[in-house]
Amino acid sequence: MFGIDVPIFAFSHCRDVVVEVSKAGGMGVLGMARMSPERLRRELAWIDSHIEGKPYGIDVLMPTTYQEAGDLKFDPDRLFPKEHLDFVRGLLDDAGVPPLPSADADAIVRELLSELSFTPAESARMLEIAMEHPIKLIVNALGSPPKALVDAAHAKGIKVAALAGRPKHALRHKENGCDFVIAVGTEAGGHTGSVTSMVLWPRIVDAVAPMPVLGAGGVGRGRQMAAALALGCEGVWCGSIWLKTIQSEVIPEIKARMFAADSDDAVLTRSVTGKPCRTLRCAFTDAYEKPGAPEPLPAPLQNILWWSEGRVRVERVRAPDFLTYPVGQIVGDMTQQSTVKDVVYEMMDELVEAQQRLSAMFE
Amino acid sequence: MFGIDVPIFAFSHCRDVVVEVSKAGGMGVLGMARMSPERLRRELAWIDSHIEGKPYGIDVLMPTTYQEAGDLKFDPDRLFPKEHLDFVRGLLDDAGVPPLPSADADAIVRELLSELSFTPAESARMLEIAMEHPIKLIVNALGSPPKALVDAAHAKGIKVAALAGRPKHALRHKENGCDFVIAVGTEAGGHTGSVTSMVLWPRIVDAVAPMPVLGAGGVGRGRQMAAALALGCEGVWCGSIWLKTIQSEVIPEIKARMFAADSDDAVLTRSVTGKPCRTLRCAFTDAYEKPGAPEPLPAPLQNILWWSEGRVRVERVRAPDFLTYPVGQIVGDMTQQSTVKDVVYEMMDELVEAQQRLSAMFE
Repeated sequence: MFGIDVPIFAFSHCRDVVVEVSKAGGMGVLGMARMSPERLRRELAWIDSHIEGKPYGIDVLMPTTYQEAGDLKFDPDRLFPKEHLDFVRGLLDDAGVPPLPSADADAIVRELLSELSFTPAESARMLEIAMEHPIKLIVNALGSPPKALVDAAHAKGIKVAALAGRPKHALRHKENGCDFVIAVGTEAGGHTGSVTSMVLWPRIVDAVAPMPVLGAGGVGRGRQMAAALALGCEGVWCGSIWLKTIQSEVIPEIKARMFAADSDDAVLTRSVTGKPCRTLRCAFTDAYEKPGAPEPLPAPLQNILWWSEGRVRVERVRAPDFLTYPVGQIVGDMTQQSTVKDVVYEMMDELVEAQQRLSAMFE
Repeated sequence: MFGIDVPIFAFSHCRDVVVEVSKAGGMGVLGMARMSPERLRRELAWIDSHIEGKPYGIDVLMPTTYQEAGDLKFDPDRLFPKEHLDFVRGLLDDAGVPPLPSADADAIVRELLSELSFTPAESARMLEIAMEHPIKLIVNALGSPPKALVDAAHAKGIKVAALAGRPKHALRHKENGCDFVIAVGTEAGGHTGSVTSMVLWPRIVDAVAPMPVLGAGGVGRGRQMAAALALGCEGVWCGSIWLKTIQSEVIPEIKARMFAADSDDAVLTRSVTGKPCRTLRCAFTDAYEKPGAPEPLPAPLQNILWWSEGRVRVERVRAPDFLTYPVGQIVGDMTQQSTVKDVVYEMMDELVEAQQRLSAMFE
């Protein structure tokens, strides 16, 4: 479908990762959530001038999902029940994380909010910009892409795919004209369902056959890639593994926390976005697990609450206990920094070993 | 290690399943929790006379874990906080599940309790009885088997294994002299950890290498077995899949609920035993998820609360909404009854297909 050498699709917010994976024979896919049109233009131009003609794609949140956030105006005291604001503020105050300087606070928060709350028109504009570049793939991260967008992409020779955590979602993507689906097991970083890759992938493969399926969730090494192929997938979709690379966007303090983490430190929590999202455990996610904590607000409010009140305060002083990032259970295998190229080559080496071991067992 | 034809280990409380799996070339393992010494003797004698000399094993809860229950005397009003008793009783009363006839109630509950609360001496006696039979394997379901037991088993040529949900538990089993470990992903039925098979199996394989590992959790078909081998396991340990067979101990009403269930109806809940246990979702597990429900009691109290107050009342009238059974996420693939033999043969057929598909991708 893309003329790539190895069926590794790399989701990353980092243009360097996208370029390196595509140059290593896989397919980089740029996550463009929370990016302004100007920044998107810059990032894609940079990719085009470095990727040496190799194919790449973009990952978007489609218009329909933006609408709910688009209608929100930022006014913390009106948007958030007092109990929730007090809970987050109290948590950070008690931990000695300083409040934002009042002059900066409003500006920082407004900028964040403007990135979070695209209107449908703005996000359509983002897609237009992306389609002016030689992208080969558009992936929808939440829900099914609208038919009109699928048709527009296909008219330009661009393939369209979408993520699915249940067979019925995968079937809807197929009906809407997607070219393939990405089956996401619960062990993945970010928003996930509750069914594991081992159980989910073959169910989705069977549900949409003969449409190709990529396995996502729990894939960071060659043996897991071999398992994906054995389970009927045509390739893999990886996100977390790139966070450990020197190219990744993750700050050193968060990387250090990831390298020290075990698999069950990647917790599924509603505290960060309001929807179940697998994230590196931290003082913030722990606080929401304790008796007496408020139930997280529905999406997108919890996300805005955390980004506006929490994350800016925390990242400004890099308060270690509160630093977090979406990551999957493979974080337990991530113990040291590496390059994107080495990750791809090690995966391929171990994939070949795994396949040879399996063949030998059958002889 | 056992001279079996196919590396499928079948955990079952049902002697027929044990015999059929071993006769089909795998290895049946009888779960003997909640069995009196007399019944164990009868079951093993029955197995010996039907299994045609094929190897089989037993799965036990070792003495150390019995102690806590052994000290409990049954007195619901003393054992259980009033809030908890009222919650369970109220739930069943509201749903119209009749209370037990008072003449029977005490006797039924006492019998249940006597099965749940072995003393260490009694459980050692159980193991002695088992070792008088030609068993080839003892599996410890909870914790590491004591060194003395491992030595006693080895002296009789019996292998010993144990279940592990984390690499450090697997390492402890190795130190205690186990011959292999069973790595249990969160998608398994019954007590499980939080890490999925895709992530956990290769981590445990690497942690205890070159000791063999069986993959458990999410295995009900050949592609999942191929994935286990690709991930570095030497075979698989399956429990849930046998529940759908005509040989299984599960009553028809529960089977019907399983056939209608989706993968995410196998919920991880503390409401049944006090520890995280993956179980078919029912009105009882749902009730504990609602705001205002009590926190489940610690093990083994929650288990006794449910078995004594709940399960007997529910199963006596087969109240459909409350019927449940431990089962893994593969329940979503279980849609109709089958025989044990057909399950084994279908798994092997699909395993071969998966391996051939993988080989073809490499040519």
